[in-house]
This record gives sequence, structure tokens and C-alpha cells, in this order.
Amino acid sequence: MSKNKYSFVGRDIERVDADVKLLGKAVYGDDLSFADMLYGVMIRSPYPRARIKSIDISAVEDDKDFVRVITASDILGKNGWPVLDDTYPFLVSDIAEFHSQPVAILVAKNNFKARELAKKVNVVCDKLDFNDDIFESMKDKKNIFSNFVVKKGNALEEIKKCEYVVEKEFHTNYQVHSYLEPQVATGVFSDDGTITVYSSTQCPFYILDAVCAVTGFTANKVRIIQTVTGGGFGGKEDVPALVGAHAALASYITRKPVRICYDRAEDFRAMSKRHPSYSKVVYGADKNGRIKACIVKYILDGGAYSTLSPLVLWRGTIHAAGPYDIDNVLIESYAVKTNKVPCGAFRGFGQPQISFSTESLIDDLAEKIGMDPLDFRLKNILKKNSLTATSQKITESIGLSDLIKTVRKNSNWYNRKNLTPSSPNKKRGLGCSIAYYGVGLGAKGKLLDRAGAYLNVYKDGSVCINIGNTEMGQGAFTVLSQIASEMINCPIKNIRFAEVDTSKVPDSGPTVASRTTLMSGNAIIEAAKPIRKNIFKTAYDMLKLSGGKGIMIASDGLFSMGDKVVKFNDVIKECFNKRMKMSEQGWYVSPDTSFNIENGQGEAYIVYSYAANIADVEIDTETGVIDVKKIYSAFDVGRVVNPSLAMGQAQGGVLQGMSWAVYENLVINDGVMKNPGFTDYIVATSLDMPDYDIEFVEKYYSNGPYKAKGLGELPLIAVSGAVRNAVKNAAGIDITYLPLLPEKNLKLIKLRNNNR
Amino acid sequence: MSKNKYSFVGRDIERVDADVKLLGKAVYGDDLSFADMLYGVMIRSPYPRARIKSIDISAVEDDKDFVRVITASDILGKNGWPVLDDTYPFLVSDIAEFHSQPVAILVAKNNFKARELAKKVNVVCDKLDFNDDIFESMKDKKNIFSNFVVKKGNALEEIKKCEYVVEKEFHTNYQVHSYLEPQVATGVFSDDGTITVYSSTQCPFYILDAVCAVTGFTANKVRIIQTVTGGGFGGKEDVPALVGAHAALASYITRKPVRICYDRAEDFRAMSKRHPSYSKVVYGADKNGRIKACIVKYILDGGAYSTLSPLVLWRGTIHAAGPYDIDNVLIESYAVKTNKVPCGAFRGFGQPQISFSTESLIDDLAEKIGMDPLDFRLKNILKKNSLTATSQKITESIGLSDLIKTVRKNSNWYNRKNLTPSSPNKKRGLGCSIAYYGVGLGAKGKLLDRAGAYLNVYKDGSVCINIGNTEMGQGAFTVLSQIASEMINCPIKNIRFAEVDTSKVPDSGPTVASRTTLMSGNAIIEAAKPIRKNIFKTAYDMLKLSGGKGIMIASDGLFSMGDKVVKFNDVIKECFNKRMKMSEQGWYVSPDTSFNIENGQGEAYIVYSYAANIADVEIDTETGVIDVKKIYSAFDVGRVVNPSLAMGQAQGGVLQGMSWAVYENLVINDGVMKNPGFTDYIVATSLDMPDYDIEFVEKYYSNGPYKAKGLGELPLIAVSGAVRNAVKNAAGIDITYLPLLPEKNLKLIKLRNNNR
Repeated sequence: MSKNKYSFVGRDIERVDADVKLLGKAVYGDDLSFADMLYGVMIRSPYPRARIKSIDISAVEDDKDFVRVITASDILGKNGWPVLDDTYPFLVSDIAEFHSQPVAILVAKNNFKARELAKKVNVVCDKLDFNDDIFESMKDKKNIFSNFVVKKGNALEEIKKCEYVVEKEFHTNYQVHSYLEPQVATGVFSDDGTITVYSSTQCPFYILDAVCAVTGFTANKVRIIQTVTGGGFGGKEDVPALVGAHAALASYITRKPVRICYDRAEDFRAMSKRHPSYSKVVYGADKNGRIKACIVKYILDGGAYSTLSPLVLWRGTIHAAGPYDIDNVLIESYAVKTNKVPCGAFRGFGQPQISFSTESLIDDLAEKIGMDPLDFRLKNILKKNSLTATSQKITESIGLSDLIKTVRKNSNWYNRKNLTPSSPNKKRGLGCSIAYYGVGLGAKGKLLDRAGAYLNVYKDGSVCINIGNTEMGQGAFTVLSQIASEMINCPIKNIRFAEVDTSKVPDSGPTVASRTTLMSGNAIIEAAKPIRKNIFKTAYDMLKLSGGKGIMIASDGLFSMGDKVVKFNDVIKECFNKRMKMSEQGWYVSPDTSFNIENGQGEAYIVYSYAANIADVEIDTETGVIDVKKIYSAFDVGRVVNPSLAMGQAQGGVLQGMSWAVYENLVINDGVMKNPGFTDYIVATSLDMPDYDIEFVEKYYSNGPYKAKGLGELPLIAVSGAVRNAVKNAAGIDITYLPLLPEKNLKLIKLRNNNR
Repeated sequence: MSKNKYSFVGRDIERVDADVKLLGKAVYGDDLSFADMLYGVMIRSPYPRARIKSIDISAVEDDKDFVRVITASDILGKNGWPVLDDTYPFLVSDIAEFHSQPVAILVAKNNFKARELAKKVNVVCDKLDFNDDIFESMKDKKNIFSNFVVKKGNALEEIKKCEYVVEKEFHTNYQVHSYLEPQVATGVFSDDGTITVYSSTQCPFYILDAVCAVTGFTANKVRIIQTVTGGGFGGKEDVPALVGAHAALASYITRKPVRICYDRAEDFRAMSKRHPSYSKVVYGADKNGRIKACIVKYILDGGAYSTLSPLVLWRGTIHAAGPYDIDNVLIESYAVKTNKVPCGAFRGFGQPQISFSTESLIDDLAEKIGMDPLDFRLKNILKKNSLTATSQKITESIGLSDLIKTVRKNSNWYNRKNLTPSSPNKKRGLGCSIAYYGVGLGAKGKLLDRAGAYLNVYKDGSVCINIGNTEMGQGAFTVLSQIASEMINCPIKNIRFAEVDTSKVPDSGPTVASRTTLMSGNAIIEAAKPIRKNIFKTAYDMLKLSGGKGIMIASDGLFSMGDKVVKFNDVIKECFNKRMKMSEQGWYVSPDTSFNIENGQGEAYIVYSYAANIADVEIDTETGVIDVKKIYSAFDVGRVVNPSLAMGQAQGGVLQGMSWAVYENLVINDGVMKNPGFTDYIVATSLDMPDYDIEFVEKYYSNGPYKAKGLGELPLIAVSGAVRNAVKNAAGIDITYLPLLPEKNLKLIKLRNNNR
């Protein structure tokens, strides 16, 4: 890495929202208050499948705090939530398709009372048969939400010629987003015919669409404002639109502000999850250890409605063969309906499940060939000018081989067979995994892959920026402040990011797909370019006028020429004296790509980020409990705009990946969730963070803002594979499931011991 | 006038805010409610001049609804309201300079209670000597807020050579804006360190400056939102900044929303007024009836603080010689301090007072020469290529002679000496007047003469526009909707103007000086240009693709080519499919001008609008009561964007001008206002509207949006002169004062009768 020539980019700038959050001054969705506000609580289906006949409010209608119940018949627009399709009704009008599906909204004058009253409302319905099994469901084609194919070469023929072939089936379970702040939205109808929704969300523009749909309002009369958001991880992608639409509808009907804030149990039961998955993977290699063919069948349990499943499935499908250079690939994938909670976006978005399968099986294949798993990967990975499974040529910014060498160097890799466990009943091992991640929405989401930014410089030199993507804790506003500061040479403290407001910026798509630095960063750069020109020209003129000599240097909020210096604020004052335009709407559209959805061939994504991991793991052979002692990771995300924040994102991703792999086990029996809360659903906390060694290798991306790519999801994706492979190496057991529950591990250990 | 080729511009589009206002759904400042809102009432100086020693709250401090009193010592920023200078303290810290000057803010939990409590607060102070007379005041130079000179040729020498010379002194009184909605603002401090102020205002950006000053916040943390505004007329120009700053300060200190809503009496006592004036005018003409010289001394009573007086004075000064082509002009003007309510902006902005003087005296001069007053004017008016008093060459868009001919033709002008009065004790006469009006802020306000506009097209084809100028009832949002619709060929109903919000558009200067159509119109055009290009290109491609032939016609929301037609909404959908940028910030800066403030020579304004009036008046010789029977007016405001709304503006201006001339009489005795309310202060209502005949003559302005100039203030300016001249012609009395109070008129009639 060369010396950093930038004043702000690539520096450890303190989080711009640190103070407001640490001092408790951040205003979250449930902190807002409005005059005469009412409170909404959802009335939900009591069965996994039920014909709703009526809502019996006789037990509550005389209560002084009861306002009304809102049902499907009250919907003024269309009773179909627009999320890819619009099959999911805002409120059930006939048949509920999963337990806890929203049937009605109870509105009351008092927050706590509302919840009590809601319990007394009786949903009069007939319980119907339901289906909770994907294989059963797939027998009826109409239960397949979507399916994709990626076909490169002829994998079915080629696999027959392979010297080494491995084949396995894998299963993974749900993952819950476990954001600290549950779903919350407030709808505020105004007499002037507009509706504003305040929401904890990643995607205000999705809510805009939903509110327009449910109310019948045009978009110019609806405004969505993101409140400070306490975590998202994909769980605030699509589903806040449902909450926001309910709040908007309730407000429109009651003509009062209406707050809907979920409790943890209903958030578990009704909000999206990482899809459970089934996959069957086959890899074949020639006698030299070159992978020649890959065949994958990948099925996601979509739950009761399609929602984002097609997109999640598509991303998983595209990446299913792994970051390997393979001439023959055949991937078939399905998202399938069951009468369970609809699954959706979760950090990694369909990739972690299939990455678990492929990285497990790649390890098994290396073992079968007798090669070191890292050497085997190095031999087969994508490199510059390689073709991906979709035959997309990688033309730049690929650090994968460096990443593998980095984690190998940092860990005890070559000594891995001689590691001492912490006690005699434990076994210790190292395992590795790699991943790639297509940044942004890809060919399938291309239409949404654009972003706006409004950059406004005030005459006192303070700056306000509005973007259409969101800060949800990941540090976007800090990283983007750095980019803006760099562009206009403005002190960081002068910049404020205002809350995201759909009335201030054009639809910028969702804040997902690790696209915010890239898309909003580029939009800010577009907005800043003409302003930069004004500022730099004015500074130059001022310096010349005061006798400056030589070349102008702009750095850290100062402009200098020889021994003359002018400050940013003074330059801005002069720009205003010249009536310059200091306010711009930037717009960035990702580069166009060409992709054939029929055979899954073409440019799937504009660029890829890369990861390599090594896990150092112990397993207790008496209890089956796994202890992840240390994770070595290396990531290529292009330019690292803020090293500390990037490190935080990486740590979080690694922990969340490990948590999914080792701890998290959502149980749905007979269509009903059994552990909807953190008492019974175990998730890793910061105390469970393993030791770690994380490094970034920057391979610049020419279209990125200051050559950055995307980071958010990457660190999570392949952790499970490394942990699984480490456990395999430690205990010699063949794991094909997640999570790695002690009782299941123990079974395998016993099986292995019996087989000896 | 040629046939109108536009679909929206030049058409009688219904007011876009008609429904919301007529149905009572418009949300005014006092309609808003916030959770936990407190109410502020100003504590004011009990004397015209007083040394404030303390605020005694002993009578209220134990009241359960009392929250606190805020005084100058609580101000966190600077105790000086930035309005040209910053001598006016937000709250008096030492000496109050006028009766009712704000000294403290009482904050209470209950709206009505707050006012009761405020009455019980005792302002402990020493009464000081005061001065309420401009001539007395001028003896001390430091009491002169500002003075200007316009010097063209050598008037002092030239006047000596004139065949005909007339000279008179004139006096005019205050005018109260009489907006329906009194001053109101709500400050809302948020825990996250921002302040939002909701205000009934013409000038949100002035409030932004004031709030920054009083709180010490940077501009990017302050946001001003204009609530639907019930009238302005200049009275919501600068002074709402004081109200807004008080509300913001009170909110910041109490950490709660604070509403301050004036009652009518304090609104009368403390808010700005039209300046009372004194003027001495001399005109000289040669034997052919050509005006050769004009000498004016013009003095405005500024009240206790300078505020906008320098700008008001400057406009009056520039226009003081009238719209005449005179080679020798000498104008001297002064704005002077007195211990009375500070005067400021009022429709016409310093022009009506001096127009009354000059149009009266021009009539007297014509009489002296023995010429028809209209012929005399026609002989001497500005024409194309004339030089104004500031030696600015009029290069285009001047309809003055057409206007004079229009009102002459429409009225009984040639029969004016033979008109029959309605009863024998009455006398009837016609009088005329003309005016010109420099559109926009002119050379003195040039730095502020810029405007922004944010135009956002949503994918459903609905459009939202934000501008920095305001709708205050004058119809700006309708006229600007027409301009936007014309630009992008969008159905009018698709467009919504959102409330003005300083966080959405750059500082666009004040909504004054009849500049909104011109400035915001041009800013919208700038924003619309690239969007228009996208829309028109997309429509063209769609029509071509569907087999369209020939030239594309865009009209009324439809695009057609041969027999193929596509609709606006469908074109927008396609634009979004192409990820086009459909969201733009427009920026317009008025053309640069060169002006020398020392001698008042140069390009004072970018363009002028013109007016001609004839008043048909009766005066009761027994009571002195004047009855304005009919007003004939003609205006050249460039393109008339909406004829009906223009007519409404013209009617309102004529009525308000007549009201000032005939009815309005504010009385301040010993520094205390005696009639602060509509019981004793008489203002013309719609029932007092005289019969009228109003016509527009469109002389296009090449830099105007669709060639429009500006309208708002023009119709008021010269009405008083026409009425005075009509009364003179009817009763033969020589009036040199306004208002034309019956008792004063009667005195003149008696004097005349005695002199016969």
C-alpha cells in the first residue's frame, strides 16, 4: 500500500454519530412523540393456516382506551404489499398462510393498554391444513416462488470424466436478525392530505411504495423519514414496509398519529428470517487437482409469501459454485412456499447457506485428493481474467490469492495438525474457507441500482447531506462524510448527515447488498463535483489575490499557496458573495451489465469483494460443545475508507457468522415458533467474540468512490465453512448441517467412535 | 397578443391550494400540535423608552402552569437580530427603544394561561425620555439609519431655467399589513441537537439566520419550515425571524416545543409597518411641457431600529422621480430613528409614499401648464431606450404608453369634467397616476437575488417541487406549477408543492420584491431542463418504437406522433426503467448589474413592470367622506402566467392601495399606539372594493420565465395618487397628506369655500 495522499479518506475518523448515540441523545422510533398519538397493535393469525371469518371485539369495544379495529375491508388502496410481487396482503381478508400473519390492527389511546386489549380480541376463524416441508411443497409447482439456472459448459458430462468426485447434501436452519431495536413505525396523516411515516428501516423507499399501495396516495403526498435505526442486518429491508404501511393506514383512518412498535415475540414470529436451506453439491476434479465440474441443487424455504425470496435465491445461485475457476457449472435453485414465516434478506442474502455447503465440500474434495485445502483453493480460485460461473470475466480488483496467503501466514496453518487442545477431552483443529461477494444489486436488481445525494453548503460553511441510503449502525454516515470532506476539502465537523427523508432525495434503492459506500459515495461525489469546482476556483482566486505563489494545496479544510492560507469557511463566504450554486443533487447509476436470465450467463455483478478465513476451533468430545478460539480473516473490499469502522464491520460479520454456525437454532414445530425470544433463542453476544486476526488487502476498483468496493456482508458469508472444516479436522466428523449443536455433534462423534 | 401556444402557461388554471384552503384543511401555524408543547408569550416594554432593571415574576412563579421566564441573559448565541445590521436585540438587555419591544419570554404549559400570567409579570424599569419626531431626530446624525443620493445631470441649475416649476411637501401615515393570520412560530428542539422552527413567513431563510444567531447553532442544524401562511404583504418578511428566534430559543432552553402566537394587539404594536413619510418634491418643465428637472427630499420614519429601512428607502429613492424621462434629477433620502415601532417591508416597499407625492405633483404641474394630465404624462414617460433617473437604459419590455392609452380608452376620461355625481352635495372627478416597479431586489440586494428549486419526479408520475420562496396566498404555487407543467408536459394535478423547508433548497432570498415568479420560475426551469430532456427523449423513443411518424407534439400531458400517443405517466415509468435522473436542484441568479451607490447611477434593477390608473371618485362636500366609485387600471408585468390569479393580485393591490389612501389611520400618541386592532383601525374589506376595470398589456421580458416579469406590488403603488388627483379634480382641493380623512378633507373644502 502506498502512502495515503488523502486528508480524510483512508483515515480513522471517529464515528460522526458516536456522541449522540453514546450520550443517549439519538432519537429512535419509539422516542418520538406526537400530539394525540394513538397506538396500534397487530391482531394476528392464531394458526399456521386459517380461514378468517371475523374479528370479535366484544370484549374490548367498551373500553375507554379502545379506538377501533382496522381490517382488510378498511384498506383504501390495494390489499397487496408490493415487494417484487404483491401477493402478501397487508391484512388477511380470507386465508392466513402462516402463524402470526397480520389480520387486523387494534388502535388504542394508551400504549400498554393497546397490547392488553389486543389479547382480548378474538380472531374468529377455521383452522386449515398446512404444509411446513419444502420437499412436500415442491410436489406442487405452484408452490415454487422462483427458480434459476446457471449453466456454463456441460457439467453433467464433465463430472463423469473426473478423477475425483465428491457429493453431499447439506441443511441449514433459520437465522434471526437480533437487531437491538424491534420494528417500529409511526404514521402521521396531516389534514393537508399528506402522510409521513417515521420508521426504523434500511429502505425508506420500499415503505414509500407500500404506503402508496395501502392508502392509494400518490408518491408525492407520502414521505418516509428514517429514525435512528438500532440495527438491521437485512431485517429492516423489506418488512418495515409492512409495519409502516399498517401505521400509515391506521393514521389515515383515525386521522391521528399512530405508533406501532413490536414486542420481541411478535418480531420473532412475524418478521423475516434467513432462509433455511437444503442443498446438494457435487464437485469433480481431475488428477492434477483442478476442479472441472460443479453441480448444485439449492432450495430455500421461503415461508408463506414470496417477498424477497427470488432475489435472495438469485444471489445464492450466482455465487453457488464458489469463487473458483470452473469450466463446467450447473446450478439449479428453488425458493419454495411453506406455511411458515416468510423469509427474506439477511446479511449475505442467500450466500452463507450455499457457501457453507460448497466450502465444506471443497475441503472434502481436497482431502480426497490429498491436497492441502489452501493449496487446493489457491490452485482453483478466480484470478484476474478468470471467468466466473456465469462466464463473467474478472478484469480488476481481485485480491483472493493474497487473502489466502495472508490468513495462512497469520495463523498456525502449517502446524495445524500439532495444536494442543486446552484439555484432554477436547480436540483442536484449523479449517479454512473463502468467499466472494458481488457488490450491489446485480443484474437481477439492476433497475434499483442507482442512488441520489443532496449536498447543501450553507453560507456559514456548515454542510448538510441527505442521501437515500441509510445509516443503521454500520457507519455509513461517517464513511460518506469522509468522502464528502475529501471532495470539497471541508472539515469533517462541518458536515451533518440529516435523517433520510424520501422527500429530499430520489429513490436510491435499498440499503442492502453492501452497496452504500459505493452507490451513495459515488452519488455524493457527483453532487460534490460542481461544488468542489466552485470552492477550489474561489480559493485559488482568493490566494492569488492575496499574493499567493505556486500551486494551490488543499488539505484538511485549508487551502494554501506558498505562505498564504485561506480557511474553508472563508472560501465558502466568498462563494456566496459570488452567488455560486452550492447545493446539488447527485445521481449515480451503476455501470450497465448484460446478463441472460435463461441460462444464468453474463455479467452478474459490477464487481466482487473477497474473503478468506481460517478458524481455530476446539470441540469437547464429551459434550459436543464447540469453542471457536480464534478467527483469522482477510478481506479485499477495495479502498478501506475508514480502517477502524471497517474493522468493526468485519468483527461483527465474523461474530454473526459464527453465531449462525454454532449457536442459533430457531425451532418451529407444527407451524408455530417455539422460542420467539432471547431466553430460548441463543445468539452470540460481544462476550462470545472469539480472538481474531483481521486484515484488509486493498485491491482498488476503478469505478468505486476513491476506489472502494463493498464490505458489509462479506465477513459473515464463509465463517461457517471454516468452523465446520476446523471441527472436521479436529474431530474427524463429517458435518453437513447448521447450526453445529452439541447434541448433533455428539451423535457424529459417537458414530465415528463406534465405526473405529 | 398572439394565440397562446402553451398548454399551461397563460391559462386560467385553478389555484392548486384552493381545495385545501376552502375545505379548512390547510394547516396554519396555530393548527400544528406537538407533544408536550409549551406556550410562549412576550413580556414587552411598558414605555416608549425605558431602562430595564429586572423582571419580577413573584406573582406567577408558583403557578402550576408557569414554566419559566427567558431573558437576554439566557441567550446562548448573540443578542442581535441579523437584519442588515444586528443592532436590534432579540431581548432587551438594557434600554428598550420603543413601547412593546420584547424584553422577555414567559413560557407556560397552557396557551390561554400563558397570556394571563404574562400580564402579571412586572417589568421593573426606569421610564426614559423619548423622541417620536423625525425632524427632531435628524438633528443628531447618529439617528440617521441610512441616506441615499441619486444625481443625474444638474437639477439645481436646470430647475432655475424652467418655465414651469411646482414644489410641495407631502406627508403619509403608517399602513398596517392586516394579514388575517397574526405572527406565529413554533420552535422544536430535538435531543439530537437540531432545531426546527415552523413559521408563518415570507422568508424562511431570514429566520434561519436569526435562529443561528440567537442559539449559536450552525445552519446545518437548523431547519425552518413555512406553515401555510395567511397573508404577508411584507409583514411576514423580516419580523417573523424575531418570533421564530424567540420560539427557537425558548424551545432550546426548555427542551420542549414552544409555540408563540401573537394576539392582534401585540401584532399591531410590535410588528413592522409601512413607514410614515415626509417628502418635498420639485418638478420643473420647459415651455413645451417637457419635464427638465426633478428634486426630491424623501424622509422615512424608521422607528426604533434600522431593520429593513435602508432597503425600503433605497427602492423609494430609486423610483422617486417617477417613470419619467428627465435629464436632471436630484434625490436625497433619509431613514430616521424615532422611539416608535420599527417600520419595514410593505407591498410597494418605499415606493407608494413617494409615488403619492410625485404623481400628485405631476398632476399639479400639468394643470399649471394647462395640459391634459394623461397627455402630459405620455409626453414625458419612459419609453424604449429612455434613461431612468439612475441613467439605466430601458432596452425592452416597456408598455407604459399602451397602459395609459388603455385606461384612457376604458374610462370616461374625455368626458371627465361633465360627470354627474350621485347626489347634489357630492362632487365627482377622475384622476390618473402611473408607476413603474423595479422587479427583484435590485443592485442593493443583488447578493440575495438568487433562487433554488428542487424538482422531483416520482416513478408513479407524481411530482413534488420544493422552492425557497413562499406561497403566502398570492398564488405562487399555482403559477409555478404551470411553469413546471409546461416545462415537462406534466398534468397540473400531478404536481404538488411541498411546504418550504430550508433543508431542501438553498437560500433563495426573501419572497418579496415581486420576484417569485421570475426567480423561482427560472429556478424551476433550470431544474426542469435536464428532466425535460429525459422525458422528451424517452417519449420520442417510445413513439418511434410503436411506429409513430412525423414530428412529436407535446401537449397537456400527452405526447403524440401521427396517430400514436403516449401518456406522461407511462413515459415516466420508462424513464425510471432507464434509471434516468429525474430529480434536480435548479439554481437561478439574476443577471449581473453595475451600479454606483455614491451617486445612485447605474443599472438599479434587471427590469421594470409598469402601471397606469384612473380613479373615479366622489367626495361629499358636507362630510368630507370620499367614495372611490371605480378604478381603471392597466398593468404590464410581461407574460401573464395565470390571468385569473393576476387579476386577483391586481384587485387586491388596488384595494389595499385605496385603503391606505382613504381609510387607514394608525395613531401613535406619546409613543404609544392608540388603536392597535380592527375595532379602531379601519381597513378596507372586500365589501369596500370599488368597481374596477383592470387590463393587462403583456410586454415580454426575455430573461423572464416564459417572458414574465413581476406583479405583486405594482397594482398598489400609484392608487393613492389617482384618488388624490380625482378628489382634487372633483372638489378643487389641494391634498398633500394621506390618509384622506374626512375631517381633513372637510377643512380643505371649507378653506376653499372661504377663499372663493
